[in-house]
Amino acid sequence: MSSAAPGRPGRALEGMVVLDLGQIYNGPYCTMLLRQLGAEVIKIEPGGGEPIRWRGDGTTVSQAFNLLNGGKQGLELNLKSAAGVELFLRLVAVADVVVENFAPGVMERLGLGYDRLEEANPRLVLASGKGFDSASRHKDLRAMDITVQAISGMMAATGFEGQPPVKSGGAVADFIAGTHLAAAILGALVQRERTGRGQRVEVNMYDAILPTLTSNIAGYLDSGGTAPERVGNRHGGLSVAPYNVYASADGWIAVLCMRDRHWQTLCRLVGREDLLADESLATPRGRVEAIGRVDEVVSAWIATLTTAGALKLLQEGDIPAAPVRRLREVIEDPDVRERGMLVEVDDHGRPGYAYGSPLRLGASAPVAPAQAPDIGEHNGAVLSRLLGLTEAEIEECRRRGAW
Amino acid sequence: MSSAAPGRPGRALEGMVVLDLGQIYNGPYCTMLLRQLGAEVIKIEPGGGEPIRWRGDGTTVSQAFNLLNGGKQGLELNLKSAAGVELFLRLVAVADVVVENFAPGVMERLGLGYDRLEEANPRLVLASGKGFDSASRHKDLRAMDITVQAISGMMAATGFEGQPPVKSGGAVADFIAGTHLAAAILGALVQRERTGRGQRVEVNMYDAILPTLTSNIAGYLDSGGTAPERVGNRHGGLSVAPYNVYASADGWIAVLCMRDRHWQTLCRLVGREDLLADESLATPRGRVEAIGRVDEVVSAWIATLTTAGALKLLQEGDIPAAPVRRLREVIEDPDVRERGMLVEVDDHGRPGYAYGSPLRLGASAPVAPAQAPDIGEHNGAVLSRLLGLTEAEIEECRRRGAW
Repeated sequence: MSSAAPGRPGRALEGMVVLDLGQIYNGPYCTMLLRQLGAEVIKIEPGGGEPIRWRGDGTTVSQAFNLLNGGKQGLELNLKSAAGVELFLRLVAVADVVVENFAPGVMERLGLGYDRLEEANPRLVLASGKGFDSASRHKDLRAMDITVQAISGMMAATGFEGQPPVKSGGAVADFIAGTHLAAAILGALVQRERTGRGQRVEVNMYDAILPTLTSNIAGYLDSGGTAPERVGNRHGGLSVAPYNVYASADGWIAVLCMRDRHWQTLCRLVGREDLLADESLATPRGRVEAIGRVDEVVSAWIATLTTAGALKLLQEGDIPAAPVRRLREVIEDPDVRERGMLVEVDDHGRPGYAYGSPLRLGASAPVAPAQAPDIGEHNGAVLSRLLGLTEAEIEECRRRGAW
Repeated sequence: MSSAAPGRPGRALEGMVVLDLGQIYNGPYCTMLLRQLGAEVIKIEPGGGEPIRWRGDGTTVSQAFNLLNGGKQGLELNLKSAAGVELFLRLVAVADVVVENFAPGVMERLGLGYDRLEEANPRLVLASGKGFDSASRHKDLRAMDITVQAISGMMAATGFEGQPPVKSGGAVADFIAGTHLAAAILGALVQRERTGRGQRVEVNMYDAILPTLTSNIAGYLDSGGTAPERVGNRHGGLSVAPYNVYASADGWIAVLCMRDRHWQTLCRLVGREDLLADESLATPRGRVEAIGRVDEVVSAWIATLTTAGALKLLQEGDIPAAPVRRLREVIEDPDVRERGMLVEVDDHGRPGYAYGSPLRLGASAPVAPAQAPDIGEHNGAVLSRLLGLTEAEIEECRRRGAW
């Protein structure tokens, strides 16, 4: 399926076809990234659409769907029918990648286990996004973002000591797993260039979220298990201080001192030159041991300033800091719009939104944002272009219950 | 550098060489993933080591360093010396990938901008992990995990309404950006197989974190900006109810009803069949509108049960749920150990830890976990193997100040 001529930049995945059985966030984000690298992504849904379409009252589609599915081709298929499976396997034969994040065992029950797909196309990469390994003790837990955040320690590590565990406000388990899944697919495609063969790849959300807790895990291991479980806005491993979010006169600001010179500058800024002579505060470990006192020094100073005022002084002193911005400010940030990370698109006559790609490749032409498909919107176009079916043959598929 | 014979599985990146200038989490996690796909990763550090080594009191190395750098080759280089730059460029000529997540402009100041690297090796992929685009309004903000969580809306979206913003307990901005960076590199390597040329790729943390907020962004857009900014442990877009973390008699448990049938089963479980007749609670939207009442029904029931007891009943009813586990339980989870996600390794005679790979490729042989290098531990071995330098030539490099 590789149509780009050698020497011509084109796009990284130009000519590649991805069959996308993804649902909600994990699978669809993975295929969004692949589309933005130049692949053609065919979003395959059953008659009722994938579960994210069921949100709201069933008559409107949330922008959550539009954001992740822009520019994909919409193909309705009933994979519980023989005709649907047959058509899917014909598409597999001409595809490069299949992505699915169904519950465990669904593909096998549909008769679409890896063996059958590999038989249809030995060059195929089958990518499965799961919650847990099929041999895991946790394999019977339903893997959604919130359940994986609960069982993985992410919630235990988020929030303030002595207060309830908190879910990370982003769907971090879903998205970090979907990003890993894209990386696994791309790794398999690199390997395919040399071996000529595809393979099965899998990413489990439980595995993908673990490394994000490196500060906390290291804090636990380094302290012999005595480190506190959650530390609010302090450093997850309590390895750095100051490192916190401080209340200003009109908001909140994050400040950290990675290096001793940041601390020294800060002492001067806040008018506490006396602390420079305190040797117990001269090292990262010393400041962590006195973390309450250190935070108080910063808090007392920032409380007297506006966020913008504090930020200006901290930046002049080259001390890492950033305002805690409201979601509204982020969504309306001209930077986000101008870089194409969040753009308005026409959604079948309604206003829609699409994401741009965080992956910026200098020699791979960017892919324009586009509207997300309606269910089955491109059945005719996809089947005629990829399989060469005539109108009569397409109608015959429909009649036989392929969708 | 591709030594795997066609048809032989080997490893996805077998024979590839990655020069790793990464620091802290973002770059080093990216190269950890590349190593686990079979690449040789050479961790290049200045005399004092990369900043993560400075944590603690300077005599011990945190497990945070070991976890991300296992199995990399340690090369000490002084890139501020002409001899160091010269040696680095000779390595670039035989490498496939360079990864760096320095502050903006550092590579250029070292005389190692993309033009110079491309000249040394047109097949090279130069991967840069940054906080913001070089043209961004935010480009002067120092991009660390906490500052990016602050400015990106992640903190605004985490925590309870009316209470302070909360940092996600995982370093999600660093790790999701590092994972995207690995995907961008792999995309560029796929493209190189067809064009024969490398390219520059970049991932900005600010871009990479945005899609994780899809529920919240969609909630904002769908509601015309009236959705609450943070909603504790409820669904980020307030699109699903019940969806929360509930206190049990001995802990916390996450429960959600994705489908109407989950809600129906739950009503029976909690002995509130009367609610089945309440049409206002029959749709997702209806339950969200009555979210306080819905949460109370679930809370009252779960408070009477242990976490394990509630989980058992919910699982029997096929209702998605999971216990909120303590970090200790995760770190000591035999599942995590047996799957090789967190394993003990010998660290130069001390106890060390290494991560396994969330990327599981069926036809790419796994890479064994190994200890992280000391600074410059492999100078001799790397320079002799990759550049063919003799002992005398290596000594001459050292004498000229290359390290």
